[in-house]
Amino acid sequence: MIDRIRYTKTALDILDQRLLPSKTVYVRAKTPAQTATAIRDMVTRGAPLIGCTAAYGYALSFNTAAPRSWSELQKRLDTDAKTLRDARPTALALAYAIDRLHEKSSRYIAANRASAFTQKHYVALAKLAASGAAAIYQEDVDANAALSKYGAALLPKDSTVMTICNAGALATAGMGTAVGVIKEAFYQNKIKHVFACETRPYLQGARLTMFELMDEKIPSTLITDNMAAHIMRTCKISAVIAGADRIASNGDTANKIGTYMLAVLAKYHGVKFYIAAPKPTFDMTLRSGKDIPIEERSSEEVCRICGIDIAPKGAKARHPAFDMTPAELITGIITEYGVISPVNRKNTAIILGGGKTKKRE
Amino acid sequence: MIDRIRYTKTALDILDQRLLPSKTVYVRAKTPAQTATAIRDMVTRGAPLIGCTAAYGYALSFNTAAPRSWSELQKRLDTDAKTLRDARPTALALAYAIDRLHEKSSRYIAANRASAFTQKHYVALAKLAASGAAAIYQEDVDANAALSKYGAALLPKDSTVMTICNAGALATAGMGTAVGVIKEAFYQNKIKHVFACETRPYLQGARLTMFELMDEKIPSTLITDNMAAHIMRTCKISAVIAGADRIASNGDTANKIGTYMLAVLAKYHGVKFYIAAPKPTFDMTLRSGKDIPIEERSSEEVCRICGIDIAPKGAKARHPAFDMTPAELITGIITEYGVISPVNRKNTAIILGGGKTKKRE
Repeated sequence: MIDRIRYTKTALDILDQRLLPSKTVYVRAKTPAQTATAIRDMVTRGAPLIGCTAAYGYALSFNTAAPRSWSELQKRLDTDAKTLRDARPTALALAYAIDRLHEKSSRYIAANRASAFTQKHYVALAKLAASGAAAIYQEDVDANAALSKYGAALLPKDSTVMTICNAGALATAGMGTAVGVIKEAFYQNKIKHVFACETRPYLQGARLTMFELMDEKIPSTLITDNMAAHIMRTCKISAVIAGADRIASNGDTANKIGTYMLAVLAKYHGVKFYIAAPKPTFDMTLRSGKDIPIEERSSEEVCRICGIDIAPKGAKARHPAFDMTPAELITGIITEYGVISPVNRKNTAIILGGGKTKKRE
Repeated sequence: MIDRIRYTKTALDILDQRLLPSKTVYVRAKTPAQTATAIRDMVTRGAPLIGCTAAYGYALSFNTAAPRSWSELQKRLDTDAKTLRDARPTALALAYAIDRLHEKSSRYIAANRASAFTQKHYVALAKLAASGAAAIYQEDVDANAALSKYGAALLPKDSTVMTICNAGALATAGMGTAVGVIKEAFYQNKIKHVFACETRPYLQGARLTMFELMDEKIPSTLITDNMAAHIMRTCKISAVIAGADRIASNGDTANKIGTYMLAVLAKYHGVKFYIAAPKPTFDMTLRSGKDIPIEERSSEEVCRICGIDIAPKGAKARHPAFDMTPAELITGIITEYGVISPVNRKNTAIILGGGKTKKRE
């Protein structure tokens, strides 16, 4: 699979996923602010990959001359952390990555503040940030592989599955979450067919998931989002599998707009509905999905496709980038620690704590 | 509202709805075959308007020199009728219009066959076809107005409604069916807001319904199809109103792909779900929706938007142009004879027969 990000000490090259599959172009970020802009403008996307990108973006803070004092350094890192953290509101992996690196830096600063600030300290901190980013990246690779195995075990032989948006390699550092499960199941000879919802307005399903599935030679068919119900009714779907941007402590899940639609349709058609997401997606500080912030993006992103107006001039459009699927509609949440099922507060805590739930699907 | 079709004895100018709202271009058909091509290629669309267009297309059969005999004439009209009737399979209004005109012509031929075929007969038949087409057109105008009043009566004050595709003036000869109901309710000061689903792949909701609603200054917001569930959950929708391409005798309804999706979502969210369609939409020869032919169109229409590829080269896509909504998901079917509710075989027969159902919503 194509590189999603390439990091050197002085720059982060970010694959411009808006241009896939027709063009392979990298956008170069040399500062945290440039990284934040790339994330906000959706050069890159997918909650885990946003987290990894932001982590390296934080490390780029050390790509400028050292400040004169500890306090100047702390101030600069505070600003950079905030800029990156605010780039997009819904994906928790972003806040998780930034908070983790920034707390590590801040602890280092607090521990060394008694001595005078030197270039040596600055280099040590830079290394700490870069290795911290690399750790977050590697953990995502490992989590993808682990949860894909747990997920594949849930699928019967000859499965026909449906997915939305792109929760694949292009959304993560590894093999993907929802698409990772599909790939692993395909390697195990369990996948008969995959239906990919195109996922308006950004068409990540058409552009990215189809690209990944075809790259792996997995039998796949693209559908428009409004075909999902008809396909569930007529094509014997074994399961719907989607990724997640943020999951509350009770299992309520925010993911790409349309995920909640699929969950309701799956319920009606008696189709299993799975969410696949690694631990950094879980926001245990939130009681329920009601507290998850849902990003509202620009109307223009709906009214124009590839630079062409599809609605009359002056048309208003809504653009919630995500929606919230209540836990009761989710058959199971597939994590690198196991499968949360039935989905509730207790089982979420047990599985993420490394235990096993009693009633597993 | 802009003319959808303009008929003269020698030509039918058909508004190219594929180019709306950015361009207003008419495609000229001088023969039934050219009319059939325009219908197949979706120059025009919307079940009632397809019926009217085909009717005038049939009248264009007389735009060529008279044949030498009754049998040659009958043969030519048989061919023209078949060409037009086969242009698209799902919309019943097309078959209804052609069968009606062709039966009239055939009856005239049978009645006059004893005498020698003359130019006078040919002119009389041409007039019969043209006036028959005009009658079908006028009946649609009247049906739109009547059903819009019945539909508006179902909506409470301050209604927020959702619709899909375009079942408006651009789909009919008159004020529209589903959008006709919305317009009439708006004139009665009952509409607070309208959400229009963009309706992939042809985007009739974004291009045509938004155009009509904005033209009427009805407060409206465009959404992508995958936002429908989130909007139902968060925006207090009073009702979903959609058109129909064919309705079986038990009330099962085929309409634009995504309509069934909205019906399932409406059921889950406790939102009323109405179909608005005139009598020529009802196929009383079909026991249920299972017998309605669902047109499968080309994959390319899904994989390209405005001439731009949105999926990898070689990607396969499904393209069912319609789906089937079972009667039990429909709160009521709004016709020019009244509202069928609850929707079942008995009430459908009663209302279309001019009677009143006992239990009306």
